[in-house]
Amino acid sequence: MGKSQKAETMFMGASTKQGYNIASKSREIVRSLIADKIEGLSEDEKSIIERIVHSTADPEYASITKISDNFISESINAIKDEKDILTDINMVKAGINKYEGQIKCYISNEETIKLAKEEQITRAAAAIRIAHDNGFDGIIVIGNAPTALFEAINLVKNEGMEVRSIVGVPVGFVGAAESKEVLKGTEIPNIVTEGPKGGTPVAVAVTNSLIRLKNG
Amino acid sequence: MGKSQKAETMFMGASTKQGYNIASKSREIVRSLIADKIEGLSEDEKSIIERIVHSTADPEYASITKISDNFISESINAIKDEKDILTDINMVKAGINKYEGQIKCYISNEETIKLAKEEQITRAAAAIRIAHDNGFDGIIVIGNAPTALFEAINLVKNEGMEVRSIVGVPVGFVGAAESKEVLKGTEIPNIVTEGPKGGTPVAVAVTNSLIRLKNG
Repeated sequence: MGKSQKAETMFMGASTKQGYNIASKSREIVRSLIADKIEGLSEDEKSIIERIVHSTADPEYASITKISDNFISESINAIKDEKDILTDINMVKAGINKYEGQIKCYISNEETIKLAKEEQITRAAAAIRIAHDNGFDGIIVIGNAPTALFEAINLVKNEGMEVRSIVGVPVGFVGAAESKEVLKGTEIPNIVTEGPKGGTPVAVAVTNSLIRLKNG
Repeated sequence: MGKSQKAETMFMGASTKQGYNIASKSREIVRSLIADKIEGLSEDEKSIIERIVHSTADPEYASITKISDNFISESINAIKDEKDILTDINMVKAGINKYEGQIKCYISNEETIKLAKEEQITRAAAAIRIAHDNGFDGIIVIGNAPTALFEAINLVKNEGMEVRSIVGVPVGFVGAAESKEVLKGTEIPNIVTEGPKGGTPVAVAVTNSLIRLKNG
């Protein structure tokens, strides 16, 4: 199996020749749209941002996506070690593929629903706390809920939660921008999308890019 | 259980008091951003578009979302009858909730992978054909692949596929805009997002809105 065959089964989510042709044409268009905005970034950083723009058809992500210096290397190390990936919602979990380790999401667990009610917090935030209670160690991927991102930062800072990196791309007009600014100010290796935008396709694009980067 | 309690368990995906408060504040912001763009639409149409903008934090959807006259009524009838909902990818399926009927997605089926290879088409397109071969009758929700939307339209026109309505919001720079223009020109009750934008959160926002509208 030659190199081009391998590319066909891996490239930007495409798994057939037809899908590969579409993804390949899409990448050309994405590059023409955002090349000037991502000039000076590393090849790995560019590949992540290109995949976000490919997945959302929204070139604005080239301007608002910010990657901390150690994010890619720390994330790839965690993926090599097959550390857990924790997502805030099941939609994000459903989009991540070809990962050798475990992908976890506690939002529908009974413990989570109970904790949310008791502590008067969102289920998304409670789900992160339940993960910590269950000995989580790995990468956190937040594609939806700012409350989950705030809780993750809190648990890292105050309760020693073992977090290798955070994909922090919650979406919305209430708290999302603020939660991402707080994350940027921490020592946690991170990627964020500044402002209200973000969401499941962004979270999935970043995570699948990292898995692909690890595979080389 | 009073009316406000009911609202708490249903509103814009929120299932806790905290989630409800966030969703409620978000709706106020969304309305202030897009009110002028959705003036003159029905209350049901407005609620769908507000939920899309809430889910994506992207007010542009208020300008590019187009709903055919019979889309909402036909979709609600299909939901009342618990017809199947067919999604193009598993991410979209994972986001739809509180549906009494079945939600189907054939993209990972062995038959689909075989057919895609034989016919030299994408897996997303093959998955729609497999659904038709299995006697599908219901609502089709395309959140990702233009090739799946083209195939759905083809099967309705040429092979009598039983489709009550189509949520046609594929995303991307290759074929997505074109596939949505073709859908708009058909008799199939439909909602589209004009241009390259769309995606899983849009598809899920529309479908969950319809389920909520049916529940009243």
